[in-house]
Amino acid sequence: MGRAHSNAFRKAGNFFELPYRPVLKTVCARNPERAKSFAAQWGYESIESDWRKLVASPEIDLIDIASPNDTHAEIAIAAARAGKMVMCEKPLGRNAAEAESMVAAVEAAGVPNMVWYNYRRIPAVTLAKKLIDEGRLGRIFHYRAKFLQDWTISSDLPQGGEGLWRLDVSVAGSGVTGDLLAHCIDTALWLNGPIDEVSAVTETFIKSRKHNLTGKVEPVGIDDASLFLARFGNGSLATFEATRYARGHKALYTFEINGEHASIFWDLHDLHRLQYFDHRDEGHLRGWRSLHITDREHPYMDKWWVPGLQIGYEHSFVHQFADFLTAAASGKGAAPTFRDGLATDDVTDAVLDSAAHRNWVKVRARDHAKGEAI
Amino acid sequence: MGRAHSNAFRKAGNFFELPYRPVLKTVCARNPERAKSFAAQWGYESIESDWRKLVASPEIDLIDIASPNDTHAEIAIAAARAGKMVMCEKPLGRNAAEAESMVAAVEAAGVPNMVWYNYRRIPAVTLAKKLIDEGRLGRIFHYRAKFLQDWTISSDLPQGGEGLWRLDVSVAGSGVTGDLLAHCIDTALWLNGPIDEVSAVTETFIKSRKHNLTGKVEPVGIDDASLFLARFGNGSLATFEATRYARGHKALYTFEINGEHASIFWDLHDLHRLQYFDHRDEGHLRGWRSLHITDREHPYMDKWWVPGLQIGYEHSFVHQFADFLTAAASGKGAAPTFRDGLATDDVTDAVLDSAAHRNWVKVRARDHAKGEAI
Amino acid sequence: MGRAHSNAFRKAGNFFELPYRPVLKTVCARNPERAKSFAAQWGYESIESDWRKLVASPEIDLIDIASPNDTHAEIAIAAARAGKMVMCEKPLGRNAAEAESMVAAVEAAGVPNMVWYNYRRIPAVTLAKKLIDEGRLGRIFHYRAKFLQDWTISSDLPQGGEGLWRLDVSVAGSGVTGDLLAHCIDTALWLNGPIDEVSAVTETFIKSRKHNLTGKVEPVGIDDASLFLARFGNGSLATFEATRYARGHKALYTFEINGEHASIFWDLHDLHRLQYFDHRDEGHLRGWRSLHITDREHPYMDKWWVPGLQIGYEHSFVHQFADFLTAAASGKGAAPTFRDGLATDDVTDAVLDSAAHRNWVKVRARDHAKGEAI
Amino acid sequence: MGRAHSNAFRKAGNFFELPYRPVLKTVCARNPERAKSFAAQWGYESIESDWRKLVASPEIDLIDIASPNDTHAEIAIAAARAGKMVMCEKPLGRNAAEAESMVAAVEAAGVPNMVWYNYRRIPAVTLAKKLIDEGRLGRIFHYRAKFLQDWTISSDLPQGGEGLWRLDVSVAGSGVTGDLLAHCIDTALWLNGPIDEVSAVTETFIKSRKHNLTGKVEPVGIDDASLFLARFGNGSLATFEATRYARGHKALYTFEINGEHASIFWDLHDLHRLQYFDHRDEGHLRGWRSLHITDREHPYMDKWWVPGLQIGYEHSFVHQFADFLTAAASGKGAAPTFRDGLATDDVTDAVLDSAAHRNWVKVRARDHAKGEAI
Repeated sequence: MGRAHSNAFRKAGNFFELPYRPVLKTVCARNPERAKSFAAQWGYESIESDWRKLVASPEIDLIDIASPNDTHAEIAIAAARAGKMVMCEKPLGRNAAEAESMVAAVEAAGVPNMVWYNYRRIPAVTLAKKLIDEGRLGRIFHYRAKFLQDWTISSDLPQGGEGLWRLDVSVAGSGVTGDLLAHCIDTALWLNGPIDEVSAVTETFIKSRKHNLTGKVEPVGIDDASLFLARFGNGSLATFEATRYARGHKALYTFEINGEHASIFWDLHDLHRLQYFDHRDEGHLRGWRSLHITDREHPYMDKWWVPGLQIGYEHSFVHQFADFLTAAASGKGAAPTFRDGLATDDVTDAVLDSAAHRNWVKVRARDHAKGEAI
Repeated sequence: MGRAHSNAFRKAGNFFELPYRPVLKTVCARNPERAKSFAAQWGYESIESDWRKLVASPEIDLIDIASPNDTHAEIAIAAARAGKMVMCEKPLGRNAAEAESMVAAVEAAGVPNMVWYNYRRIPAVTLAKKLIDEGRLGRIFHYRAKFLQDWTISSDLPQGGEGLWRLDVSVAGSGVTGDLLAHCIDTALWLNGPIDEVSAVTETFIKSRKHNLTGKVEPVGIDDASLFLARFGNGSLATFEATRYARGHKALYTFEINGEHASIFWDLHDLHRLQYFDHRDEGHLRGWRSLHITDREHPYMDKWWVPGLQIGYEHSFVHQFADFLTAAASGKGAAPTFRDGLATDDVTDAVLDSAAHRNWVKVRARDHAKGEAI
Repeated sequence: MGRAHSNAFRKAGNFFELPYRPVLKTVCARNPERAKSFAAQWGYESIESDWRKLVASPEIDLIDIASPNDTHAEIAIAAARAGKMVMCEKPLGRNAAEAESMVAAVEAAGVPNMVWYNYRRIPAVTLAKKLIDEGRLGRIFHYRAKFLQDWTISSDLPQGGEGLWRLDVSVAGSGVTGDLLAHCIDTALWLNGPIDEVSAVTETFIKSRKHNLTGKVEPVGIDDASLFLARFGNGSLATFEATRYARGHKALYTFEINGEHASIFWDLHDLHRLQYFDHRDEGHLRGWRSLHITDREHPYMDKWWVPGLQIGYEHSFVHQFADFLTAAASGKGAAPTFRDGLATDDVTDAVLDSAAHRNWVKVRARDHAKGEAI
Repeated sequence: MGRAHSNAFRKAGNFFELPYRPVLKTVCARNPERAKSFAAQWGYESIESDWRKLVASPEIDLIDIASPNDTHAEIAIAAARAGKMVMCEKPLGRNAAEAESMVAAVEAAGVPNMVWYNYRRIPAVTLAKKLIDEGRLGRIFHYRAKFLQDWTISSDLPQGGEGLWRLDVSVAGSGVTGDLLAHCIDTALWLNGPIDEVSAVTETFIKSRKHNLTGKVEPVGIDDASLFLARFGNGSLATFEATRYARGHKALYTFEINGEHASIFWDLHDLHRLQYFDHRDEGHLRGWRSLHITDREHPYMDKWWVPGLQIGYEHSFVHQFADFLTAAASGKGAAPTFRDGLATDDVTDAVLDSAAHRNWVKVRARDHAKGEAI
């Protein structure tokens, strides 16, 4: 993720009017060789292997956390206490308890903060939000989301260590629940409001794998697949599913919302399109419209190329960073804030709890209205 | 459904070599005017308003039941006892208990029998079965199915009576669970084997509607939406969903199966296509193949038109009827037999039970190997 | 085509209110064995090997010509002179001169007549015509059509004789020009009005093939591919293309029309859909709508199944036959009449002329308003 | 285009190993205010309003020409004579004569050169080239390409001046022929070899428009639409079409190639996909594969994100610039070189000639093997 973030830092100012001119000050990594090479590639002024020095440095205004999940809380809390703005990769914590402490820290410090749930800022997804907020869908009946991958099907794939920490439950916190479902949940909470309760099932298809750090074959602690039924606060019903065992799909994140008047479908594999059906169209001309989200009237798209020319994955990070700086200039964070990230962790906690106990579980209710963000 | 069945009776012999030459003897309906008009339109030799007379008639070899769900058991059992071949619309019974008595009757009588789960004989679906049976998918990880409609969203729609008995729980037995989910379940059991357990949720979005027969606004007894998680006997996980509140979808029945080596997707709105992904293709040329199921090498398609020219919904009934007659000639039924129909009712019973009690429910295990069918 | 026609004769009355009750009197074929078998399969009362006897028979009201192209004119003219209604497979003649004599005969006799350009009655295509007639597209700028097949790519395929007469130029008149382009042209003239002039190129990729009747390798006389540019009377520009050498396409007939306000696209491989774009939609919600042509409000579709359930290729023949009988009851023919078929032959003549002489060729102008049809 | 190029200059080094470290030295524009603002936005060190000074500056190694078409030749020739590497926007010249002088200049000077036909470096297009070069398609029968836009349909749109010079024939040289068709032709020559002859038609739908510079309503000199038939050197037949009057399409550049064994289709509106059909697949499993070009095995894609995450339009420029620098390091240009650009101008000349004289026109034959490029 360091590349996606750095690309955003370098590129945002070329396409957006920013209140700040970002300076790529220091890249921090445990491995100095990699830090050096990364800094050279991306134009960072210096490198560091101890993140505490960055947090302590008066030269640094903003800390961006793109390290494994088990490091998020400690760094973020220290950064907040040091008065830095903080951006953190998702999921916010390995669980809601970690996330809660992070929220407490940034809110106590009053520092602008944000979690990198970047898919909110794919223009097609931002447009979906706009259409819902305009009331075009009417009463919502159904929500369905899935995030399908197929990269861990081989039992030869090891777990743990460089590049594979997502398979190590002690580092990641969970498997696809925190990695993939979390994306689906963040979008869902944003588009469709809070989730009341869930009934979930998880599975680990490959029970043991060689661990890269220990060299031994060890039990796999993560969930390979995670599915749940949900009831939202607005009365709609939902299915959610995430897996790394869906042959043929690399990163197929899709969601669909069915409302009384209109429905919306989106798909990460064709992220520049939004499918929209409006029942108010004339009867014989009703159909799913394939909106090609490249027009100046679409969110963010007046900043890019002429109509018809699509942008890609990385642009969502550029948008998010530009929005964050804009918000930060007036002392706010940009959604999803840490508090929003906590809301997602509350749901993933409920999912894992439900799967473990085979029952319906209520999602923790909190006052998420607190905190200001754009 | 009378039209779809009658069309199959008339048409099968033009396209298939049949062991029998079907004669459209008598159409039976409570309303004699409608029976008369229907008989004239379709070329039935006579009409009848009391089904018992048909069952008793020595002129009749085969009884086809296309009446509302609450009549299935009584007619089927009488027909079986009278030694007739029996074909019955789905779901077999309003619940597994009814279905069980029907199975007992046809098996005791030894008469060829079949339930009209017609989607098995859409050529694309038949091909999916063939590919699975050939082992092309390998170990199965995921199954997902949904059946989405949007025709009952308006609260002005009444319930009950002619054409609307599907909204009357006393006649239908359940709402979308028995109507739509049953199709998804029949296909799933056929393609992916038995389901072990389910966790379900149902909802009735419109709580009361005017009843057409009583004229009064009455509580709605059916489920408008029914969703469940499932674990199959083969270890795969599944989501199932059916609803009549998915704006923009008229009859969107879809299923997807993800196996170790290959995946399959099908969609009733484009029923002449099958999507197929094979991981064994060369790395840079892997992609979902959109198979246009119109070639002579595809199931049933050597009987129809030249390649490229698609068939439609009604053809699945023609195929099913042709297969039934072929099986009947050697004294067998054609799958799905009543016993197969019972297996589906066992799952819908479990779904409704789970939704009512908010817990995981085991599906009744039976010996479904019994009974011979093609 | 005998099967597609016979299916229409048998089926139209089950789904449409017809002014006549069609009786399948006699099937005529040179080969008595095949005639007999066909009659048994389809329920014809008798067979005949000499078409002249049918034309002379007082028992016969309507002659349907589904034989090779070189027989169309002689049979149709004789039938017209005998006062029979006449339906003829397309193309009407092997060239416009033949077609002209056929038009003269049916118009002199005043008999209802029709050419089987069946694609006009695919509901999606009929809807396209309706939208154009309502003026929804505004001024037309572009038309593009193609008909792509791939069944003659192998050089091992012989030419001539049973089932392969389409490769024999003396029987067929031309190759893909009269076979496939003719369909594209008929639709285009119907939807977009007369064509003024064309510039064409044709090619025969496989220069010689074994002839089935002579047993010798002989030069191939037909065109394997035929492409042309056109200018319509309404000022719009067009590309047309037909080939049997487009690997991956079985019968991919597509057309697209671009108007000032709206555009339309249709595709035979998904014939139950119409793609529609309307610029008058709100700016950020403009998109190609995929209309699933299965609703009661769509042409012909109130006669078939419930919304969402598609029909197929053969239904276009049912519609055309039902329309023909309705028209015939008031003494009219149904479009496309022989006169319409002649208009298409005028264009294919111009195409072949242009390809032969490598120049732009004006299409013969005639008064096509003559003749009454529905 | 200045933004697309500058983005490539800044970004290439972050993702590719480059032999040079590009320095954004000077931006040149007639309007100093715009130059200043552009320089600030993109980090150019200085601005200039007279391009001759850049050409004369020893500080500058590479001249990139992104100005209107009527300035290409003069700047490129001067730059080449000054020994600079030259990159030029397409089309190379307003006609082949201009392009010829540019080729002469760069070849005489021996400077690395390149034309910005960026679509060759969309990974899906690069993969298409690879598949063709591997012989997977076999003998080629058909090529078809179109580039459809709809932005000039309104008669209120003026011509000429800032942002609208593409409608002024004296500046642009031609309308869609040089602007859009040129892209189609460049790709076609690359993928399918030289074109022998063409038959074309052009049209100007809106005959006069207000001119922005003169303020008067003046005749429109450009072609609004340009269509042609072509025969390639390899015997295949083609249709080409470009227009700005195709309602519903913003930048729909598509091409399809049909070979004996396999076919390929690509579409700029979903540029991250390649459609591939291989007849050598098993008969009942043949289908168009939708390749999602995001895997490490796909051209350029090992440099970007993890599989499943798409890139966009701008990346083609990054690829082209990275390839140019790599080539330049060993003294070569990168394809398409000026000589390749001239080949395209030869075809557009033939198209305009054919349209003007309404006949088939042979494309000028040259020895295009000259010149070294990667």
